[in-house]
Amino acid sequence: MDMEKLVSLCKRRGFLFQSSEIYGGLNGFWDYGPLGVELKRNIKDAWWRDMVSGHDDLVTLPGAPAAYEMVGLDCSIIMHPQVWKVSGHYDLFVDKMVDCKESKGRYRADHIRCFPVQIDGQTVGWVSSMKEPEEFAKGLSNTFDKKVSKLFGGKETKIVVDSHVSYSTISVPDRVKVLGPDASELNTLTEPRDFNLMFKTIVGALGTEEDAAFLRPETAQGIFVNFKNVCDSTRVRVPFGIAQSGKSFRNEITPKNFTFRSREFEQMEIEFFCHPSTSRKWYEYWRDRRMKWYTDLGLSSERLQLREHHQDELSHYSTGTADIEYAFPFLPAGEYGELEGVAHRGDFDLRSHMEGKLDPDSKPDLKVQLGPDGKPKWRGSGKDLTYRDELTNERFTPHVIEPSAGADRATLAFLCEAYHEDEAPDENGKLQTRVVMKFHPRIAPIKVAIFPLVKKEGMPEIAQDIYRKLKKRWNVFYDEKGAVGRRYRRQDEVGTPFCITVDGQTLQDGTVTVRDRDSLEQKRVHQDQLVAELETRLS
Amino acid sequence: MDMEKLVSLCKRRGFLFQSSEIYGGLNGFWDYGPLGVELKRNIKDAWWRDMVSGHDDLVTLPGAPAAYEMVGLDCSIIMHPQVWKVSGHYDLFVDKMVDCKESKGRYRADHIRCFPVQIDGQTVGWVSSMKEPEEFAKGLSNTFDKKVSKLFGGKETKIVVDSHVSYSTISVPDRVKVLGPDASELNTLTEPRDFNLMFKTIVGALGTEEDAAFLRPETAQGIFVNFKNVCDSTRVRVPFGIAQSGKSFRNEITPKNFTFRSREFEQMEIEFFCHPSTSRKWYEYWRDRRMKWYTDLGLSSERLQLREHHQDELSHYSTGTADIEYAFPFLPAGEYGELEGVAHRGDFDLRSHMEGKLDPDSKPDLKVQLGPDGKPKWRGSGKDLTYRDELTNERFTPHVIEPSAGADRATLAFLCEAYHEDEAPDENGKLQTRVVMKFHPRIAPIKVAIFPLVKKEGMPEIAQDIYRKLKKRWNVFYDEKGAVGRRYRRQDEVGTPFCITVDGQTLQDGTVTVRDRDSLEQKRVHQDQLVAELETRLS
Repeated sequence: MDMEKLVSLCKRRGFLFQSSEIYGGLNGFWDYGPLGVELKRNIKDAWWRDMVSGHDDLVTLPGAPAAYEMVGLDCSIIMHPQVWKVSGHYDLFVDKMVDCKESKGRYRADHIRCFPVQIDGQTVGWVSSMKEPEEFAKGLSNTFDKKVSKLFGGKETKIVVDSHVSYSTISVPDRVKVLGPDASELNTLTEPRDFNLMFKTIVGALGTEEDAAFLRPETAQGIFVNFKNVCDSTRVRVPFGIAQSGKSFRNEITPKNFTFRSREFEQMEIEFFCHPSTSRKWYEYWRDRRMKWYTDLGLSSERLQLREHHQDELSHYSTGTADIEYAFPFLPAGEYGELEGVAHRGDFDLRSHMEGKLDPDSKPDLKVQLGPDGKPKWRGSGKDLTYRDELTNERFTPHVIEPSAGADRATLAFLCEAYHEDEAPDENGKLQTRVVMKFHPRIAPIKVAIFPLVKKEGMPEIAQDIYRKLKKRWNVFYDEKGAVGRRYRRQDEVGTPFCITVDGQTLQDGTVTVRDRDSLEQKRVHQDQLVAELETRLS
Repeated sequence: MDMEKLVSLCKRRGFLFQSSEIYGGLNGFWDYGPLGVELKRNIKDAWWRDMVSGHDDLVTLPGAPAAYEMVGLDCSIIMHPQVWKVSGHYDLFVDKMVDCKESKGRYRADHIRCFPVQIDGQTVGWVSSMKEPEEFAKGLSNTFDKKVSKLFGGKETKIVVDSHVSYSTISVPDRVKVLGPDASELNTLTEPRDFNLMFKTIVGALGTEEDAAFLRPETAQGIFVNFKNVCDSTRVRVPFGIAQSGKSFRNEITPKNFTFRSREFEQMEIEFFCHPSTSRKWYEYWRDRRMKWYTDLGLSSERLQLREHHQDELSHYSTGTADIEYAFPFLPAGEYGELEGVAHRGDFDLRSHMEGKLDPDSKPDLKVQLGPDGKPKWRGSGKDLTYRDELTNERFTPHVIEPSAGADRATLAFLCEAYHEDEAPDENGKLQTRVVMKFHPRIAPIKVAIFPLVKKEGMPEIAQDIYRKLKKRWNVFYDEKGAVGRRYRRQDEVGTPFCITVDGQTLQDGTVTVRDRDSLEQKRVHQDQLVAELETRLS
């Protein structure tokens, strides 16, 4: 699939626009247009319905160790800064950045590609670039070769373009031999330093650093800090889950790949609380259940994969993490991008928010506090976040399984998966290339389009009656403009599963044609049977 | 109604929690708990369905000048800063703040209450306070009187507590005679200066002021800057509306009144584009339609009012603005708080985003640029945002009607309106005070609760079958714990419209009781008829 075609369709048909486009856009921010907002709403609603509001908490679902309850939550984006201190984001949610003293540019250390410079087959230094290797190779010239030769003592140098290393991996003493991406002299890059990815702002009128606050980089912490509130205000009993969907923000250095890596994005996160002894089983349950959710909604298992992290990739508190990944067309062949991470987090988060007592009168201390072990010393709320089982009377800190999904990434994967080109006859019966978005009916922005074949003989009136009847249940679209073949194509291109046409025969026997987007089959259905017919075919 | 009781119920039953409560909370931020999130979702969904997805764009609705189309949009919260320069928010969305040189306090100028100090009936100065007049009067003492007397030359002074003016209205020369709210000397308050209410952050790794960006203070501008994208990607024709729901942020100096004035809130905004010649009629249509939306969902017309702005309250470009207001119980008697503003905005917004061309290479200039008339000089995108009518070939800049609602304020009004105390018999038939939330069924978080009368004789199994059947359509709750009278009370308190009980008779004839929350009437319905019965009564 050609990604450019999809991006162009998304703009042309109103799925996605660049944010603030009339002002030249803003890198890493996107707007959902009229069809995009319906698509994304359907995906978020499907998640909420399948995970929360439609969840049957009385039966044990297949694969689950027990029946369990699910509740929702909706927290603020700006939270108390101490939340991020305790979660570790304030101290550890950083990228290493390098400045160039000469060009004043700033680069992510692991994104600087360093190509070896060799003299007589020996590496004597590196020239670096932010470009892809092929692009970099294309840009080389005699002039540049001469310049590099001069920098390394005037001998004949060779730039090796088919191998490179990241700046981060070059040893500190060797870094003096690197030519910066936009520099003309060696040794102009500073040592890498931490750049926090949280967006910072100031709350209140005083405008001082003491009132610094952050846009949440994840919705998960809002759930942990409300764990006690939820336990106290509902009758939930462990095991249970709390679900939240909402915007998060990360000041990514290099937003890219359409909406895949953006600075503002929407998450769909669940924190599932269970007894430590059953947490591994719950982890396996959620990993499999969440994988199935994507395939049920139409992501093919060919492009989708479940990748279990190796033991040595896991955090010390985790006994398992799996990524649900999709082979996005903008990635190199064989590479996958993360849609959702399902992590066993042990009792790490609740314990962090619980341990240690902060002086209630002190302002949150947002400077890095190192403990005797050299690691950041987190101080929690001092509130008791343990749980007492009413039946066994056991008190424990629940373990947490976290299925954390990206709503925009899911939307993008469904868009990529849906895009198809095939051939279909046009209005004259001639085969023509057809662009069709094969969305699962549950997430298709428009469920049904209704056409009168011609704008006369009462067909529009009948079609409008049908439109009105169906509109009560679904998002339907009425169109009477142009040849019916073109109207079909317009609906195919936005993934409408069914098109209904009122024609001459309708006037005689009350039947209409129902055309299937994918098979192109047309079936006559009596208009009184339409709701029942569509209800079956849409679910 | 006692506001404290409602606030307490909201916390106890999981409607609303203070944000980051375990860390002492964060002023002006709130979290929605398990029931609150469902309530707010239902309100937002009702708005979306009534205004957008369920809108019939083929008929002319009652009161409307013509049939019209509606589409949705979902923009980013962080937009290009030039958007806010052009909209006027960067220069004009300010509160006047006053600093105290002595106390280092900072106050909103129009919130400083200045009480006259008189000598022999002549006003010689003012003592000021941030307190309500009654509170201020209570705090007066002989010591304070003596201090004031000394400040004004030692003569006998009288503090007039039954009249006060805001600091803003005191003439500049007279301000030297004001005692600051926390000061011990006269003339310690600075001149008022502008404080912008937008939250500022920095986008990208450079961290300089050139990369300043703002959290949107309203969703409306996202619609205006996408006007052309929507026209180009859909077939909408003027008149039509674009709707958007999402978070906005304002750094309020004094957040207060529960969720009424918060710093992070959710809006439901429509920008309706029409021909200038019909805009007044469209204004009247939207004003009335939006008012009706609230009453249809259960806000009583007694506490709700539509307040037309007087001619001299209107902006120069507007021919009409009306506020839909609710008499919130936390306001003094006779006062109303705004739920929604419906404004005729003329072509002001589209014209602002259109006029003037910014040098494409220049960074957005966020310093105040004054024009020759001394007013801020806004520079738009230079893009053509006019509209050409295909039928008449007329080209014009559409006028805009803006119904702008607050989702949190609507939720709060529905909560206040729903709260009732009455008397109902308890399980022993004795009349007891009952707290009942009389939500409209469409917005009630739980639609139906299902109880087996006792936990034996197969009643739980039948009740669970019913639970499962209804769960497919609605948010339903199963409860088998405790006396059925107490279970009813728990559901009354969260506003569940119907409770279904499976009892002895069910085992014989298959009927169950359906209890109405408001009338307390119980009606026997056969379990096979339940879906149909509830469908009627819930809509």
